Amino acid sequence: MEDKYNLLKEHIGKVVTLTDEEFACVSACFIYKNYRKSDRIFKEGENVKYIYFVLSGLLKLYYTDENIKEHIVSFAMEDWWETDVSAFYTNANASFTLACLEDTELLCLSLENFDRLCNHLQKMERFFLRKSIAGHIGSQQRILSFLTSGAKERYEQLIARNPALVQRIPKLLLASYLGVSRETLSRLFS
Amino acid sequence: MEDKYNLLKEHIGKVVTLTDEEFACVSACFIYKNYRKSDRIFKEGENVKYIYFVLSGLLKLYYTDENIKEHIVSFAMEDWWETDVSAFYTNANASFTLACLEDTELLCLSLENFDRLCNHLQKMERFFLRKSIAGHIGSQQRILSFLTSGAKERYEQLIARNPALVQRIPKLLLASYLGVSRETLSRLFS
Repeated sequence: MEDKYNLLKEHIGKVVTLTDEEFACVSACFIYKNYRKSDRIFKEGENVKYIYFVLSGLLKLYYTDENIKEHIVSFAMEDWWETDVSAFYTNANASFTLACLEDTELLCLSLENFDRLCNHLQKMERFFLRKSIAGHIGSQQRILSFLTSGAKERYEQLIARNPALVQRIPKLLLASYLGVSRETLSRLFS
Repeated sequence: MEDKYNLLKEHIGKVVTLTDEEFACVSACFIYKNYRKSDRIFKEGENVKYIYFVLSGLLKLYYTDENIKEHIVSFAMEDWWETDVSAFYTNANASFTLACLEDTELLCLSLENFDRLCNHLQKMERFFLRKSIAGHIGSQQRILSFLTSGAKERYEQLIARNPALVQRIPKLLLASYLGVSRETLSRLFS
């Protein structure tokens, strides 16, 4: 278990340097949970209790339209944060569903503990500011991908930003994320 | 001019309370600029020097596709912040263009001064964390609007979140934002 928290410590350490005592306060605010492939962490319409730091595995955040078609908003793998941000921060019901594409281990932070960390540790407020900016950038780039008409350009944008992710995601889901057919994706890959 | 900065002071005061001395430090970090209707503040491919706080007027942030068609990412009016966040925070070239739909007055904050404020005033770091989370929420909600297939649902989402904005935006642009024809929009309005 200590190993698990080391991943979080290294991750935070890229932005701010915490003492062992400070990190003990931080790690005490997280809950460890593990899920199996295909598990749903929260569903559209539900309460979203946590923001999730991915220790291992792979997540997809998606929207289900009225024809029960899934539209992928984002993927998240090790060292990434994920949640339905609107639902989490404003106590609204989830617009999206978060599900596991692989067996997944998460560290879960409640809004109460998020606020507690920000109030008690200035360094964590700085850390979350950096992560929040990164999340905002990621979402604006996802908007760009919806607007970019060329499949090749969308694919190249994704590869440039997240090469490791592209290798990891099942091809059918990658095609769905990019809004192309499986055949078009194969052509782009080659 | 002092009046202008009062708007910023009130805006920040909704999140954190600054002393007059602290606010003097903050306001010294901003540059005032005014633009005429139809002016472009930055264009796709350009450097993005500032994040903008809108004092008066109305902005549109948009992407131009290969057929020179404009796709609206977001609008911003008084009391809102706007920029191409990826370009601003990472010193990349803009993917979007920011233009004025009305005569517009802005307070402009450079990345250098953003960092300076975060480093010198913990309260401003807290303020920017709240604004960054709000920006992230706004972008994830915009993603939702792209994925929501029903025009009526998209319209209702926008009305629920930003009633004042809906009244203010020219109908043709509102239709473009919602991805519907002008006729469909008129039907929704009635």
